[in-house]
Amino acid sequence: MTTIRLDSVVKSIRAPDTRARAEIQRHLDNLTKPQGSLGRLEELAMRFCLATGAVKPVLKKKRIYCMAGDHGVADDGVSAYPKAVTPQMVRNMLGGGAAINVLARHVGAELVVVDMGVDDPLRGAPGLCRRKVRRGTANMALGPAMSVADATRAIEAGVRLARAAKRQGVHLLGSGDMGIANTTPSTALFSAYLNIPPADIAGRGTGLNDQGIRDKVRVIEQALAANRRALTDPLGTLAALGGFEIAGICGLILGAASVRLPVVVDGFISTAGALAALRLNKAAREHIFFSHLSDERGHEVILKKLGIRPILALNMRLGEGTGAALAMSLIEASVRIYNEMATFHSAGVSEKS
Amino acid sequence: MTTIRLDSVVKSIRAPDTRARAEIQRHLDNLTKPQGSLGRLEELAMRFCLATGAVKPVLKKKRIYCMAGDHGVADDGVSAYPKAVTPQMVRNMLGGGAAINVLARHVGAELVVVDMGVDDPLRGAPGLCRRKVRRGTANMALGPAMSVADATRAIEAGVRLARAAKRQGVHLLGSGDMGIANTTPSTALFSAYLNIPPADIAGRGTGLNDQGIRDKVRVIEQALAANRRALTDPLGTLAALGGFEIAGICGLILGAASVRLPVVVDGFISTAGALAALRLNKAAREHIFFSHLSDERGHEVILKKLGIRPILALNMRLGEGTGAALAMSLIEASVRIYNEMATFHSAGVSEKS
Repeated sequence: MTTIRLDSVVKSIRAPDTRARAEIQRHLDNLTKPQGSLGRLEELAMRFCLATGAVKPVLKKKRIYCMAGDHGVADDGVSAYPKAVTPQMVRNMLGGGAAINVLARHVGAELVVVDMGVDDPLRGAPGLCRRKVRRGTANMALGPAMSVADATRAIEAGVRLARAAKRQGVHLLGSGDMGIANTTPSTALFSAYLNIPPADIAGRGTGLNDQGIRDKVRVIEQALAANRRALTDPLGTLAALGGFEIAGICGLILGAASVRLPVVVDGFISTAGALAALRLNKAAREHIFFSHLSDERGHEVILKKLGIRPILALNMRLGEGTGAALAMSLIEASVRIYNEMATFHSAGVSEKS
Repeated sequence: MTTIRLDSVVKSIRAPDTRARAEIQRHLDNLTKPQGSLGRLEELAMRFCLATGAVKPVLKKKRIYCMAGDHGVADDGVSAYPKAVTPQMVRNMLGGGAAINVLARHVGAELVVVDMGVDDPLRGAPGLCRRKVRRGTANMALGPAMSVADATRAIEAGVRLARAAKRQGVHLLGSGDMGIANTTPSTALFSAYLNIPPADIAGRGTGLNDQGIRDKVRVIEQALAANRRALTDPLGTLAALGGFEIAGICGLILGAASVRLPVVVDGFISTAGALAALRLNKAAREHIFFSHLSDERGHEVILKKLGIRPILALNMRLGEGTGAALAMSLIEASVRIYNEMATFHSAGVSEKS
């Protein structure tokens, strides 16, 4: 395993060189369609080209990392499902029966399921990518969910996975998550990073009722209070309020950005990981595609506050990478448009009068 | 060629039997995900099942018919592109270089390019499906664009194509259009059917400037006035203000609905064809998927007025079936979710507490 140091990875991330923008735009405008008429597809192609630094982009191999972890705060009853569901769903994914398996197959993406911190040994489990830092986080309502050292290990594992993907010829990454109760730490992270009261953004997760949401808000407020002194820097905040899968996603994004591998961020949980990455180095922004607007209540407010317009809005709130998978197919469509369409000249089509 | 009569086709369309709804919903709820957490994907799967009458749906073979036609009203300068572009783009499509070719390939749909009324003999043109009614419509600003007999022929051609697709084992149809100036007749149809002033919905089409839009509004107002007496019934309105490709799309939808073949409607132009079909028999509604919100100015107002929430909103305004192609892939994804996901029982996953 290569030794990496998080601070040097973070420092190595650069915003894309935009000098090729005019050349890419000229090519898009020469294709046999009115200029700009493919709307966001053209924007996606442009972003992919700039992020990868290619005026002749290649997008074939796609991979989704679904990061799994458990949360001590699940003990406070913040989820509609029991904690045992995390390892059960990991096994379901390894068996090919989860939603993300179906959607990854549909869009032609490879799926890698990563144990970042599931509270189960997951014995057997062929195909599992084992990067377990610990068996679940501590209860953030009582103190830090993770030590800074453990959070750093989780981030670095994500960085390594992104870089391995790059070495293995992957052209587009997707993030996903599995972790019972993980809308709670994600909401806490949004609250802390964006200074939004938890009551404004806490939602139903997998299916809480109104009382459940009130309890969840109270638990998050408690966690923010219990960890106040840790919330002064991005990494300390992630360690105190995050989770191993969220830190893994943060690392995946940092690692991808550091090697110019574009990464498609899934929904609510993955956005929390992305926000942590952006707090560490905002230059990662242009390497990220935000796939979809989640139906989880706070996502719209959060994306607006970040100035992000997601690609899809399909009322999904499942996680796993399901939104990322669908968006990856649209990004691939945009690159194919860029690469495969005829130009006005080559097709002998008259231009605008 | 089978003889069909439009009125009997229209009469044969039935709203789907919804008795299977509870069984389909039960299956969706048994899949390993929180209930409803796949949002619109679940809604799309439900609609596909109900439209086809299957609790075990099959969606493999997909076909897009791109209907092409020319418009007499193009003489009034309502488009940013010259009329010659219609046959040029038909040839570009037959050569595989248009946006719809790329997107159809990307989603695994067959593309059939249909000459419904291009003002060009299109000699040679291998692969072209020839259903030309006439070489372009008359100028609707001066009188009816088509005779009722010609419009009926165009609709019937569309009906036959949909039924042929059904016989050939197609599971999902898509509509598309190519026709320089055709946002003008489409806008006129929306004005007439929905009683909206043209100035409220007329847009840039392929790229008019503000003066161009004002001229377009004036031409549409002129057409509405010139054809006032024809606008009393759905077919008369379509003939007076429509086009051969729009009538073909209308027929495609009616034919599909009559044999329970779901059809994905593209953007602005195809919505005009769909609206004509719905005016002839509103029971066709449940067989239609509206693919995307076009960037053409009036589309949002029109869809809202019709109570339709499209699947995608990607600021596209190209037509050809490009929005339909992308949405077809999402519908296929939804059916695969329905067919391929594990259930809580089969995967041994605990249910909600």
